[in-house]
Amino acid sequence: MQWYLVASLLTILTSSQGILTTLSMTNGRYRYDYATVPFLAEVFKLLVSSYLLWKEIQKSPPPKMSTDWKSVRLFPIPSIIYLIHNNVQFATLLYVGASTYQIMGNLKIVTTGILFRLFLRRKLSNLQWMAIVLLAVGTTMSQVKGCGEASCDSLFSAPIQGYMFGILSACISALAGIYTEFLMKKNDDTLYWQNVQLYTFGAIFNMARLLLDDFRNEFEKGPWWQRLFKGYSFTTWLVVLNLGSTGLLVSWLMKYADNIVKVYSTSMAMPLTMVLSLFLFDFRPTLQLFLGIVVCMMSLHMYFSPPSMLIELPKMLNEDSESLLEVYVDQRTGSSR
Amino acid sequence: MQWYLVASLLTILTSSQGILTTLSMTNGRYRYDYATVPFLAEVFKLLVSSYLLWKEIQKSPPPKMSTDWKSVRLFPIPSIIYLIHNNVQFATLLYVGASTYQIMGNLKIVTTGILFRLFLRRKLSNLQWMAIVLLAVGTTMSQVKGCGEASCDSLFSAPIQGYMFGILSACISALAGIYTEFLMKKNDDTLYWQNVQLYTFGAIFNMARLLLDDFRNEFEKGPWWQRLFKGYSFTTWLVVLNLGSTGLLVSWLMKYADNIVKVYSTSMAMPLTMVLSLFLFDFRPTLQLFLGIVVCMMSLHMYFSPPSMLIELPKMLNEDSESLLEVYVDQRTGSSR
Repeated sequence: MQWYLVASLLTILTSSQGILTTLSMTNGRYRYDYATVPFLAEVFKLLVSSYLLWKEIQKSPPPKMSTDWKSVRLFPIPSIIYLIHNNVQFATLLYVGASTYQIMGNLKIVTTGILFRLFLRRKLSNLQWMAIVLLAVGTTMSQVKGCGEASCDSLFSAPIQGYMFGILSACISALAGIYTEFLMKKNDDTLYWQNVQLYTFGAIFNMARLLLDDFRNEFEKGPWWQRLFKGYSFTTWLVVLNLGSTGLLVSWLMKYADNIVKVYSTSMAMPLTMVLSLFLFDFRPTLQLFLGIVVCMMSLHMYFSPPSMLIELPKMLNEDSESLLEVYVDQRTGSSR
Repeated sequence: MQWYLVASLLTILTSSQGILTTLSMTNGRYRYDYATVPFLAEVFKLLVSSYLLWKEIQKSPPPKMSTDWKSVRLFPIPSIIYLIHNNVQFATLLYVGASTYQIMGNLKIVTTGILFRLFLRRKLSNLQWMAIVLLAVGTTMSQVKGCGEASCDSLFSAPIQGYMFGILSACISALAGIYTEFLMKKNDDTLYWQNVQLYTFGAIFNMARLLLDDFRNEFEKGPWWQRLFKGYSFTTWLVVLNLGSTGLLVSWLMKYADNIVKVYSTSMAMPLTMVLSLFLFDFRPTLQLFLGIVVCMMSLHMYFSPPSMLIELPKMLNEDSESLLEVYVDQRTGSSR
């Protein structure tokens, strides 16, 4: 499978995630416990990966699988990072509003680039760095509140702690991605065995979180397993399937492509969701959405196009016809063209 | 003189033009006839160019000057194009609001690129085209009305004629620049002689316009020469000097650099004016202004940096230290890096 097909599929599924979640609500409220969805998605991913691993084991030669403790013990770490991230996220939201939080979330694109360079030692050209910054700018632009919109909290009015936690949150979120890429690529174990380990711990940590919430609420709503499937509609199941599938695609990209490809896939989903919302939810188009999409497209082109294609000058069509070029003294010829 | 110094000076002067014009008003109104300012600026440019030409004529060898009618007759054309532009501008404003008109003005950046390619047959790389589009996006972004601002006319609600005239206006405005560049570069006449011709016709056309306005208003406010200097303050004179100087710099750039350099200089002035306004007029900063500036800076870097600098990968610092690169199978190596 080609990485760009997987990446495009991830963009489409990430985009439908937001739309399906909105559609799964009844009169703007969840009639089911949303906290159970990520747990079920982990279970779905675990089942799919286990089945694929079982199929692969029956083939010859058998796939490579490291089962020593030294290797397995690395797999709960992504779950632990996400646990820390959830708490930082909570702390950030004490200081900033939801829309500022959403805007600051785009910082993750840039922090992923930085950690990608620092920890995975991957080299990026000047142009690729610019593309990464432009991707963050483009997604942020598309989210800028329009003229005359209801909630108008200024991005520049939050206390300094809010920004500190926002940056920390972006770093931890990027770290989770970078660590997962390291984990998937550190040896040539089969993807499915790596997935089984990852999702087993994922399911356990999600279960623990549900249980912890129950203890915090003193079992007001009963134990979590009683809330599982309660009020689930067909759309809720689609949300679970969708979340699980995006997880599997991300995992694939981490092994066979990289974090930047993943960041592009999920970031391009933001403007795509907004465009789809125009049709589905009668959302009004804004100039900033259009500009944001243009910037994201340019960024995509800058990052992934072969550099030679970007900098080559087109051949002159009529080299010998009358032209101003002959009388033109270009001071820049030596330095910049 | 280096082109980038002239270009930077043009940015600063263009930026101060808006600020000086605001400062020249008393209680938000002009106490002088603003229509007389461009005429005086033409006279100022004519005087400066005549003086410089006179100085140059006294040197040996004497400068090259084409005085045949076949050459001179080309110099009123820019004035005629501007005359047509003024009328199209007027027609556009019948259909769209002032802020939509201002936003559409950024189209001029892209149309200049297109006419630059078509008429002057200058080649631009893929990356330079992207930079031009990004410059237009960046300047537009910085002008997007903020959340909660007073006037809220939507860009997408004007009648179709408004957009047609807006595009036409952008094309004519670009054509004026492209034609002037052609004029300045078509032979190696001295810049000052070319300027003298250009500004003589400029002054005549401006005078004719003032007179025409007088006839239209049936000399209600008296003939234009009686309004000249009336109510002029020190700041008004600075506005005249500033407008004249920017004209001379543009002329220099047209001969020794090109239209794209000019477009960058004047476009970068927009976000600069807004940043200066933050301090001078207690203007509130918006997220879109910040994002617009980032995009403009990226565009500048993309257009003018040596391509080799943009696409080169940095050298690895610790080539032999443990790295993930060895186990990494990059599907993109062949096609995109």
